[in-house]
Amino acid sequence: MERQGNIMQFRPDIKVVDATIRDGGLVNNFFFEDSFVKKLYETNIKAGVDYMEFGYKASKELFDVNEFGKWKFCDEESIRGIVGENNTDLKIAVMADVGRTDFKKDIIPKQDSVIDMIRIATYIYQMPAAIEMIEYCHEMGYETSCNIMAISTARESDIDMALELLGNSPVDVIYLVDSYGSLYPEQVGAFARKYRDMTEKYGKKRGIHAHNNQQLAFANTIEACSYGVSYLDATMAGMGRGAGNCMMEQLMGFLKNPKYKLIPVLKFVETEILKLKEQGVVWGYDVPYLCTGILNVHPRSAIAAMKENDTNYSKLYLGLWDKEG
Amino acid sequence: MERQGNIMQFRPDIKVVDATIRDGGLVNNFFFEDSFVKKLYETNIKAGVDYMEFGYKASKELFDVNEFGKWKFCDEESIRGIVGENNTDLKIAVMADVGRTDFKKDIIPKQDSVIDMIRIATYIYQMPAAIEMIEYCHEMGYETSCNIMAISTARESDIDMALELLGNSPVDVIYLVDSYGSLYPEQVGAFARKYRDMTEKYGKKRGIHAHNNQQLAFANTIEACSYGVSYLDATMAGMGRGAGNCMMEQLMGFLKNPKYKLIPVLKFVETEILKLKEQGVVWGYDVPYLCTGILNVHPRSAIAAMKENDTNYSKLYLGLWDKEG
Repeated sequence: MERQGNIMQFRPDIKVVDATIRDGGLVNNFFFEDSFVKKLYETNIKAGVDYMEFGYKASKELFDVNEFGKWKFCDEESIRGIVGENNTDLKIAVMADVGRTDFKKDIIPKQDSVIDMIRIATYIYQMPAAIEMIEYCHEMGYETSCNIMAISTARESDIDMALELLGNSPVDVIYLVDSYGSLYPEQVGAFARKYRDMTEKYGKKRGIHAHNNQQLAFANTIEACSYGVSYLDATMAGMGRGAGNCMMEQLMGFLKNPKYKLIPVLKFVETEILKLKEQGVVWGYDVPYLCTGILNVHPRSAIAAMKENDTNYSKLYLGLWDKEG
Repeated sequence: MERQGNIMQFRPDIKVVDATIRDGGLVNNFFFEDSFVKKLYETNIKAGVDYMEFGYKASKELFDVNEFGKWKFCDEESIRGIVGENNTDLKIAVMADVGRTDFKKDIIPKQDSVIDMIRIATYIYQMPAAIEMIEYCHEMGYETSCNIMAISTARESDIDMALELLGNSPVDVIYLVDSYGSLYPEQVGAFARKYRDMTEKYGKKRGIHAHNNQQLAFANTIEACSYGVSYLDATMAGMGRGAGNCMMEQLMGFLKNPKYKLIPVLKFVETEILKLKEQGVVWGYDVPYLCTGILNVHPRSAIAAMKENDTNYSKLYLGLWDKEG
C-alpha cells in the first residue's frame, strides 16, 4: 500500500509525456498548423517535458490521407520538418494502434528515424498482436510502451494475464489507460499497485493516460504517480477527445523537480491554445462527459450531444442505459 | 491510515449538503429569483440531499441590505417563503461568519425557526469567537458546524489547538475547508485523518468544503470521505466563488446510497443553471484559478483577471509572487 516518496520530494523516475498532438488530434482530425506544432515542440523543451508524442502511425491503406492532417500518419519527414535532427533532451514518441497500422512497412529502423519511442495502443483482447508489434519495434531499435486501453471495462483476470505477457516481453513501459474517464482515484490507486506488483519484478516501468470526464484526470494521474507510476501523460489545456486529458499546466504546477517549468506552458496556453478555441475547436469537461464517465461507457454519445448542442442531460443519461447498457 | 468502507458500499453516516445559494451567492451577490430557490429546494428533496444551505446570516449593520439579495441575510420569513414549515427530510442550514453577524440579535430560538443547523465560518485565529457563537447557537437549540477556513495556510500546531478546543465545545460537525483550492488529495487525506484522530474521541463528525481551482474539488471531497469525513458540501454545477465547488452532479454519480438520485440534479442543471449561465453569471475552473490554487493564495487576483478578460496567464502567475508572496 505504501506510497512512493512524499509530496515535497521529487522522483527522478518521473517522465512527463506531452500527448497534445496525438490526443488533441482526435478533436481536429490532426489538422494542426506547422507553427503550432513547432511552438509546442519549443515549449516542451523549455518546460522540461521528457517526451513529445507527435501523433499516430496510422495505415494509409485504412485511412484516407486527404481526410486527416499529417499527424495521423507521422511520416519521418513530417516530424523532421519540425524537429530537424532533434538535438535536444526531448524525446519523440508516436502511437501505433494495434490493427490500424502497417507497422512492418511504416516503422523504419531507429537508426534512420528521429523517433525514440513507439507507443502501442491496444485493447486487452488484442494482446498477442500487441506483443508482436512490441517485439518488432524493439528489433528496430525503439523504446516501446504498451497502452492497454479501456481497463475500466476489462476483466481483472484478463488484465493479470496481459501484465504477465507484457512482463515477459521486451516492452519498456506499461500504461494504465482510463479511456472512458470513469475510474475514481481509489480505483486508479488499486490498479497502479497491481501494475507495480506484477511488473516490477520484470523491471518494467508504468505510465498513466487519464481522461477528464469526471474532472478526475489530474487527480487520477497524481494518485497513480504516488504508487510508482512514472510516465505521466498530459496535454496543453487538456486538449484531447471529448472531455480531454490531464492538463500539462496542472501537472507542471504539481511536480517538484526543478527541471519542470510552468511558465512556458502558461505562455503556450495563452497564445496558441486560446487561438484554437477562438477558431471553434472544442474539448474539455461538460455534463454529457460526466454522464458517460459515471456509466463507464465510450464517450461517443456525449460527443454527439455536444456537437448538436443538446443540453437535455437527464434524457442523455437515461438513454445511455438503453443504448449502452 | 485505513479507509472507511469501500467503493462499492454506502456509508449511512454520509450527509450531502447543498451550498448552491450560499457559495453561489458570492457570484451574484445573492440575487436569486425565488423560483430558482424554490426549484432548488424541490430538487434537493427529490435527490435525497440531506441539508440545504440558504445563505448567510450577515449583519445588517455591516452590510447594506440594498446591495445584496435577501439570501445574504436569510431572514426567517425569507426562508419560510420557500419552505413553509419544511415538513420534509431535508434540513435547512445557514452560515454565519465570525465577526460579520449579529448573532445574538439575528439568531432566534430554534423553536421559532425552520432552520436546523447554523454553520459557523471562522479563520483559525478567530477560534474563541467561533466557540462563543457555537455555544450560543446550541443554547438556542440548533445543530452547529464549525467551518475552519483556509487551513492550507494555517499552522498545523494552530489547527491542533483549534481541534482540541472544538472537541471540548458542543459543536456537532467540524469542517475542513480548502478555501483556496490549493490542497492535493494526498494532503486532504492527511488532514482528514488528523481531524478524525483528534475529534473522534469527542464524538464529533467531520465535513469537507472544497474549491475547484485545480479541478480537485470532487477528488478532494471523495478522498476526505474515504477517511471518515461524512458531511460533504457540493453545489449545482459547482456554482461558487471563482472556480466554484465540488459539483452536486459529480457527487450524486459517485455515492452508492440508493437514496441519492442523479436525475433530478441533471434536470436542475439543464433547466435552471444553464439559464443563469446564459444570463452571464460566470464561475468554474479556468487557468487564473489554477494559478492562485498552485500558489496557495486567495483567488482575488484570479477573479479580477477573469472579470477583465485578462488571459495573460504567465504574467498573472509571475505577478502573484510579487503581490501575494
